[in-house]
Amino acid sequence: MSDYFNGRVLLDPKEVPTEWINILPDLPTPMTPLINPMNGKPAPFEMATAIFPTECVVQEVSQEPLIPIPKKLREIYARSYRPTPLQRALGLEKALEVVGDDIQIFYKNESVSPTGSHKPNTALAQAYYAKSDGINELVTETGAGQWGSALSFGSSLFNIKCTVYMVRASFIQKPGRKILMRSYNAEVHASPSRFTESGKSYYNEDPDHPGSLGIAISEAVEHSLTSDKIRYSLGSVLNFVCLHQTIIGQETKIQLRKIGITEPDIIIGCMGGGSNFSGLAIPYARDKVRDVLPNLEIIGVEPRACPSVCKGKYLWDYGDSAKKAPILKMHTLGHNFIPSPIHAGGLRYHGIAPIVSNLYNKGIIKAVMHHQLEVIEAGLLFAKSEGIIPAPETNHAVKEAIDQALLAKENNEKKVIVFNFSGHGYFDLLAYKEYMTGDLENFELSEKKIIASINDADMPKIDESQF
Amino acid sequence: MSDYFNGRVLLDPKEVPTEWINILPDLPTPMTPLINPMNGKPAPFEMATAIFPTECVVQEVSQEPLIPIPKKLREIYARSYRPTPLQRALGLEKALEVVGDDIQIFYKNESVSPTGSHKPNTALAQAYYAKSDGINELVTETGAGQWGSALSFGSSLFNIKCTVYMVRASFIQKPGRKILMRSYNAEVHASPSRFTESGKSYYNEDPDHPGSLGIAISEAVEHSLTSDKIRYSLGSVLNFVCLHQTIIGQETKIQLRKIGITEPDIIIGCMGGGSNFSGLAIPYARDKVRDVLPNLEIIGVEPRACPSVCKGKYLWDYGDSAKKAPILKMHTLGHNFIPSPIHAGGLRYHGIAPIVSNLYNKGIIKAVMHHQLEVIEAGLLFAKSEGIIPAPETNHAVKEAIDQALLAKENNEKKVIVFNFSGHGYFDLLAYKEYMTGDLENFELSEKKIIASINDADMPKIDESQF
Repeated sequence: MSDYFNGRVLLDPKEVPTEWINILPDLPTPMTPLINPMNGKPAPFEMATAIFPTECVVQEVSQEPLIPIPKKLREIYARSYRPTPLQRALGLEKALEVVGDDIQIFYKNESVSPTGSHKPNTALAQAYYAKSDGINELVTETGAGQWGSALSFGSSLFNIKCTVYMVRASFIQKPGRKILMRSYNAEVHASPSRFTESGKSYYNEDPDHPGSLGIAISEAVEHSLTSDKIRYSLGSVLNFVCLHQTIIGQETKIQLRKIGITEPDIIIGCMGGGSNFSGLAIPYARDKVRDVLPNLEIIGVEPRACPSVCKGKYLWDYGDSAKKAPILKMHTLGHNFIPSPIHAGGLRYHGIAPIVSNLYNKGIIKAVMHHQLEVIEAGLLFAKSEGIIPAPETNHAVKEAIDQALLAKENNEKKVIVFNFSGHGYFDLLAYKEYMTGDLENFELSEKKIIASINDADMPKIDESQF
Repeated sequence: MSDYFNGRVLLDPKEVPTEWINILPDLPTPMTPLINPMNGKPAPFEMATAIFPTECVVQEVSQEPLIPIPKKLREIYARSYRPTPLQRALGLEKALEVVGDDIQIFYKNESVSPTGSHKPNTALAQAYYAKSDGINELVTETGAGQWGSALSFGSSLFNIKCTVYMVRASFIQKPGRKILMRSYNAEVHASPSRFTESGKSYYNEDPDHPGSLGIAISEAVEHSLTSDKIRYSLGSVLNFVCLHQTIIGQETKIQLRKIGITEPDIIIGCMGGGSNFSGLAIPYARDKVRDVLPNLEIIGVEPRACPSVCKGKYLWDYGDSAKKAPILKMHTLGHNFIPSPIHAGGLRYHGIAPIVSNLYNKGIIKAVMHHQLEVIEAGLLFAKSEGIIPAPETNHAVKEAIDQALLAKENNEKKVIVFNFSGHGYFDLLAYKEYMTGDLENFELSEKKIIASINDADMPKIDESQF
């Protein structure tokens, strides 16, 4: 046995990283700006700060390679759950019969946060910056509820009101998440709701409309614009959100170094909006861009029911259905795309973080897809061998890590595989039940549906010569 | 700020304690034996080992003050979740307006285990010892599901089959726990079931019988006796179970010493069967017995709906309703006592660990009671200020810690208060929902009901002159 005690590498709360990694200055192609959906021009600073906390807007376009994490925020991370453990999946390795140290699987366990996922990393940061700005309410949307819980938690710690528009399908399917958010004092509405113009159009048509992340975003943005003391908060996609998540990869690097690993071979994360993936991947992606780790493989994993990167197109698109959120250049399935109701609700977004698109276009990262049944099966194997039941989203990364380990075994290769264990599945047990009772389905997504969705006449036309 | 970073004291996995604290040789009055329910005589060794793993039976009566934790088991603790954090409740202190360091509230966070409570501490130990004995199935009962989840998890790690009889009221109310156990490959039956003689008598009368822990224990013990490769596993009450939990207090002592605290003032835990309370309390209770910490207050907290210690009598009683489990001398409300359906299902046992009774009789520990509404209210304050939503059981300790802090503030006293945060409330959100919607009730327990239950002609008569 090496100098780490049976596979769990902990850091002291004093070791919470002092800086986030900003990859913008290192990107092979300059980042495209956020576009105002009203006129197709880059959103001016004042417009962005009417929606988001000021410091977040500054971070969104910053060219500083390192951005300091405020001391007070580091203390709150440290008091609450950070640093999180890095764990060697010895039980899973045994189950896969990869014996010895030739193939090593590690997971960064973000499920230990109070709301069970990586989401508080940015929720706490956004609540901190909102409080600094004198804001008294944050409003957001949530799909599966991970993000809504995290922002409710963060707002509660900073004594800010929190309002959450929750996709109605999840609102009904996951009552636990709703109660959790309300326990943190948040106001939670099923979306589409009758409280916003964006919601009403759908609600009046069908009060039982299952909703989508796109619609819920529209509602939240609209709500945030009703007062100058309210700001909108987004849990993924944007540059500053991915930035806040880089604390994951920063810690992972320190932890791997502690046990003598400076060059992992494969980095894996699941991708919905792209933030948990970016969190682990960005610090490593920068090393790859800089040719420090030229052979590193970085793999993002998508659900086959919503493969924005694997099957989408790199285009300008609206961030939401009602075209109220900024327009972004990203891989997208089209803003009207409504994915099948897979349990991995957090991966049901039509687009992806522009940073991820950029890295993908340059070949710095890869993307793969998995089906619902195979990822839940992987999650059950993980639960039995490691003891922790993963979120359906996380299972996409688990599945890919398993596949990579088995491939390395077949090829007699030595590999250090690291994946982001983005969240636990305590609120998603229905997925496991359906798997065990044989009621879980895969959803095939036809090329025809994708083409139709992207070819929608409704896509924004942006004149790129203006910037 | 002192030398611990904002209130979270972590230990390295290498620092998992090497020994459990056995308080039996230090007890002011010798421990009474387990009695065979068939003949009223002390259960012989061979009888006990037909029910429990051999080493557990040895530990049950050991007079060694320190019992080594096997290295392999320590490694499994360390790989999975131990040591757990000790956290200063700075957010709660702020909410209570106890500023500065005069009043310090700490909680030992056992909720970070894979199944969310302290229960795996003994589940892993029992599965380890069963495996060593060549046993291939463990069977148990569960109320709220914490214990059943923990044993399913432990059995899964050691590749042992696990069968769980789950009190039907919880089986229906907490489907998540059921799915979680099945995800770990456990077989889960609603109790009373039609699979055992003990269950059938109730089941045939009423197939919807809500069940009780007492009935479920009877079913599990009966099941365990059907093969010599099956053993019964109990999650609380017995000496060896309390012993395994002392790892909690052992770590807490190391953690407090690291930040310069050698003499805490108040130790608090909730009490159902008494194991989580004992886990934190025993290492400190021994110091009090030995006059090392003569002024320490140790407080066990019971629900008003099931106050075995506060309102029960110290008597010989059956451990279960069907009189199949050993007879114990303990504070009891009578083995036929069916408590009101409070959400803190884990505290609905009619008796208490004989160790706890013994310490209580000698004034080493105190016991207090709280009502359901006040404990859930305390839990909400904790969730809002600390970010973690507690289990309803745990809220009994939270409530008492808050009361003690406020009392100290009123009296201008300096106090270090430490409580055991035995579990999170992700599976118990209904309790919070009912509180928030005004649907949660208190249950008054009349003296008359208690007297009737204890005076039941059915109590065992044990001749104490025989030992």
